[in-house]
Amino acid sequence: MRVSRIIFKPLALAVTVASFGALAATDATKHPDDSASTAYEGTASSVEPGSAKVVRSPGAPDLTDTDFEKAKEIYFQRCAGCHGVLRKGATGKPLTPDITQERGIDYLKAFITYGSPAGMPNWGTSGDLTPEEVELMAKYIMHEPPQPPEFSLADMKETWEVIVPPEDRPTKQMNDLDLENIFSVTLRDAGKIALIDGDSKEVVNIIDTGYAVHISRMSASGRYVMVIGRDALINMIDLWMEEPQTVAKIKVGMEARSVETSKYKGWEDKYAIAGTYWPPQFVIMDGDTLEPKKIVGTRGMTVGDQEYHPEPRVAAIVASHAHPEFIINVKETGKVMLANYEDLDNMTITSIDAAKFLHDGGWDASMRYFMSAANNSNQIAVVDAQDRNLEALVDVGQIPHPGRGANFVDPEHGPVWATSHLGDHTIQMIGTDPEGHPDKAWKVVRTVNGQGGGSLFVKTHPKSDNLWVDTSLNPNEAVSQSVAVFDINDFDAGYEVLPLAEWADLGEGPKRVVQPEYNKAGDEVWFSIWNTQDKKSAIVVVDDKTRKLKKVIKGDYLVTPTGKFNTYNTQHDVY
Amino acid sequence: MRVSRIIFKPLALAVTVASFGALAATDATKHPDDSASTAYEGTASSVEPGSAKVVRSPGAPDLTDTDFEKAKEIYFQRCAGCHGVLRKGATGKPLTPDITQERGIDYLKAFITYGSPAGMPNWGTSGDLTPEEVELMAKYIMHEPPQPPEFSLADMKETWEVIVPPEDRPTKQMNDLDLENIFSVTLRDAGKIALIDGDSKEVVNIIDTGYAVHISRMSASGRYVMVIGRDALINMIDLWMEEPQTVAKIKVGMEARSVETSKYKGWEDKYAIAGTYWPPQFVIMDGDTLEPKKIVGTRGMTVGDQEYHPEPRVAAIVASHAHPEFIINVKETGKVMLANYEDLDNMTITSIDAAKFLHDGGWDASMRYFMSAANNSNQIAVVDAQDRNLEALVDVGQIPHPGRGANFVDPEHGPVWATSHLGDHTIQMIGTDPEGHPDKAWKVVRTVNGQGGGSLFVKTHPKSDNLWVDTSLNPNEAVSQSVAVFDINDFDAGYEVLPLAEWADLGEGPKRVVQPEYNKAGDEVWFSIWNTQDKKSAIVVVDDKTRKLKKVIKGDYLVTPTGKFNTYNTQHDVY
Repeated sequence: MRVSRIIFKPLALAVTVASFGALAATDATKHPDDSASTAYEGTASSVEPGSAKVVRSPGAPDLTDTDFEKAKEIYFQRCAGCHGVLRKGATGKPLTPDITQERGIDYLKAFITYGSPAGMPNWGTSGDLTPEEVELMAKYIMHEPPQPPEFSLADMKETWEVIVPPEDRPTKQMNDLDLENIFSVTLRDAGKIALIDGDSKEVVNIIDTGYAVHISRMSASGRYVMVIGRDALINMIDLWMEEPQTVAKIKVGMEARSVETSKYKGWEDKYAIAGTYWPPQFVIMDGDTLEPKKIVGTRGMTVGDQEYHPEPRVAAIVASHAHPEFIINVKETGKVMLANYEDLDNMTITSIDAAKFLHDGGWDASMRYFMSAANNSNQIAVVDAQDRNLEALVDVGQIPHPGRGANFVDPEHGPVWATSHLGDHTIQMIGTDPEGHPDKAWKVVRTVNGQGGGSLFVKTHPKSDNLWVDTSLNPNEAVSQSVAVFDINDFDAGYEVLPLAEWADLGEGPKRVVQPEYNKAGDEVWFSIWNTQDKKSAIVVVDDKTRKLKKVIKGDYLVTPTGKFNTYNTQHDVY
Repeated sequence: MRVSRIIFKPLALAVTVASFGALAATDATKHPDDSASTAYEGTASSVEPGSAKVVRSPGAPDLTDTDFEKAKEIYFQRCAGCHGVLRKGATGKPLTPDITQERGIDYLKAFITYGSPAGMPNWGTSGDLTPEEVELMAKYIMHEPPQPPEFSLADMKETWEVIVPPEDRPTKQMNDLDLENIFSVTLRDAGKIALIDGDSKEVVNIIDTGYAVHISRMSASGRYVMVIGRDALINMIDLWMEEPQTVAKIKVGMEARSVETSKYKGWEDKYAIAGTYWPPQFVIMDGDTLEPKKIVGTRGMTVGDQEYHPEPRVAAIVASHAHPEFIINVKETGKVMLANYEDLDNMTITSIDAAKFLHDGGWDASMRYFMSAANNSNQIAVVDAQDRNLEALVDVGQIPHPGRGANFVDPEHGPVWATSHLGDHTIQMIGTDPEGHPDKAWKVVRTVNGQGGGSLFVKTHPKSDNLWVDTSLNPNEAVSQSVAVFDINDFDAGYEVLPLAEWADLGEGPKRVVQPEYNKAGDEVWFSIWNTQDKKSAIVVVDDKTRKLKKVIKGDYLVTPTGKFNTYNTQHDVY
């Protein structure tokens, strides 16, 4: 268990970050059993008048200060990712008091206990929340959402730590590792990452990080690994050290998902950027030390109806190769911000109106077009990083969740970028070559059926003929514990299913298969077999040519390994 | 009395906009008598339990819903301009509950009643507020400030009205007026403007507008007059009609100060823009119809300490001549936004870090540099509209308030731009010619003493040798009722004082002299003699060469005439 300190102003509140028993790793909806929504009869926790400070909201059951604070913590840990810190809804439904009070306490308790087929986890029957906690949460969400604190430059600087200053760092690589083939593996519930050697499959080092590291990103030079936790703690790890270790860290907010580094020619390793869910903003930092330089808020008007949104969260960020810019997905407003970092004091930002609920995405193969999933809009927004405008909005299936997507040359349609979906079983290829294949560009040129919905990631590699599709959040165990693989030269042949969880031989637990990631050579694919924290997890390495098991990486350190990021592929945006 | 409808969501609240008896026209501080701050014993209005819905805030006296709503209206009308809708302070001090509750009710009542020499008006002794209202306001500001409603595209469109569509408007000028020498005169407390012929001094038309019109701006072609009220109502007046009249109007928020039109070559009359104090945002509208096109919020981080500000109000806006851009002063964050209007769906904005409390300003003579007063920072920010960056920050006197400032060629220092001050008696000239006079550029090259503090505007004209300096808010009646005029070729000679209020011969009342404005030819200067609503006001026209009275414009219609804007000079940014 890891204890993290969240800075509240003016109060300081210590938050114990409990482990997530349930698998709610990403913003993705989760599909638990389709339980009947019968009312749950919990034990009421009564507030004795005069016994404690009481929190009152019109129409909501009174809560003691203590209970309110407890509920606030649980909400931040379990609910905010999908429903938003201000409960305006996004991947999850809005939970503002006008809605929750109309539903009533019994309905809310049942919903929290049993979940829903639409994606709400079954927090009660899973054992993650006690009946008392379920009741508390039902009451809590009938109150006005408390406003979380802002995070200023001074707040960030208070958390900022340069453990090894640039002048004390090595001037050349001090180890014998192949730095182009290291995997940075998230050990989600342990609050760590493991650096694993892609050749030997041995652990290089295990490093304390923020809680539930969402992604690892490489500096443009390939020297530094940047990891960011959901708690918005960033670790900057120097791969040149004899034993790669954190050289700087900073907490940039209360909840975060994205980190990236400047990659434009002449600006390599100069800046890092992190985007936060709360507060809704991003910060540009010094690429050597993580010193926070420039904070930019994302609050503003939504696309289309142009209504003010108080909490437009920052989702995916990529570094432009066309200009010295970061490209930032702002979720609720549906805007893609191209933030130029040439002159931070006179900063130019182009805001591209795309579509609401922008989430994840990645480059097309030419690295000119940023393909971005507007998940609940069921669209892919294509941003032209060169001309700085919206190239297209492409209608796709239900809740696209491509990760960074997968680029390959379709035998019939030319260069395409693929996405799978959380909400349906399709994988769709979008033409990405407006010059060579103008009639195919920004159209869904091919739709194939996979194993089912609940897919988080698709993956291929320039040297591979395979397209891998996970179905990690599918409610069917056989589906969530295996992966489908297509031959990109013969989609008509359908897909082969590899029972990876079975191959890993881990014993009991949900053992979801998640996130294919290639090694540098593109001849093997790594998959997480993601079990709960108290069960055994593993990484399964598959030979890409033969589709046979190559190696199962196991070890007590492998606690909830979710994401894995190959240094070379991440550095060069190969996917 | 004009009744305006403010749209609250989800409630609709009709707000009666009462006339301002006191002269609190601009954001400027007001300097009432320096009365002693003894406690005022008002009649307490008690809240009977159970008799009405009660508004409670911890540490504040309870208020009935009705009283709370009444106080909210008074606050918006009287206090928000200086203290901010969210009471974070700006020109006035912050009035958040942590501060007001510490001060206590008696202190607050005394302060509201008697005002302060630092600029707080004497609302009680002036008779503007009854003792009961003073007490109500003291209690009200001890409560948490209620969050005012946002203004979305739909909210704006609901208020938008095209009275004469473009296709029904004349295709050529239908009257015999010299459209280059009309004055658009604010009739502040009447909620109207008067169009006055600059040659005959006769009224062309009197047109209903928003309340307390802050400025009039010309479209680039000189055809349309845009006026904006403090209540954020914009009127677009077509000067080509036989009788110039409003052809379109829209309410863009709850409180506003600025309107402008696109002036870049090729974009003339294409767009209009308005900035609001609340909500903190600006909107770009169609230049023909005022249809709202694009709303951009200004909430974000302050310069320097980079703290989030929830209410960064939009002050002065000018149209760039260097790029197709509007240049927007964002007050509390201290940022100058260069908003490019070439592609509103993929909109590029450069945010220049200047200094906090940006307010008014204008172009240097070359129209490349925007000179902007950061009033409470006692600085002038120089923005290079060509290179899109901060050219300089110039330290000046206490609370510069230049209006648009005054450009002339100083005999010793070359081209300069002048500002006067609210907080001291100086007028300062800043060198504006980095090529011809690099050693003088962006330095205060000359400081002269005027009649005193409380100056709102300085003015000259390319064809004039006079620099006029009003002192409208000076507490000394002889000073506020006269104007000082300098010979720009002989500053050592000091200034001449013209007793304009005396010349106007209006009888009793405060009769402040405010805002010199030239005619097109630059041979006469118009001054407002601004009396209270119930007293007679006038416009005094002075011959610029002889400095003698040329004409006093009087009439019952001339209710509180504050600003006056000459069509040609406004169209061509001549000042």
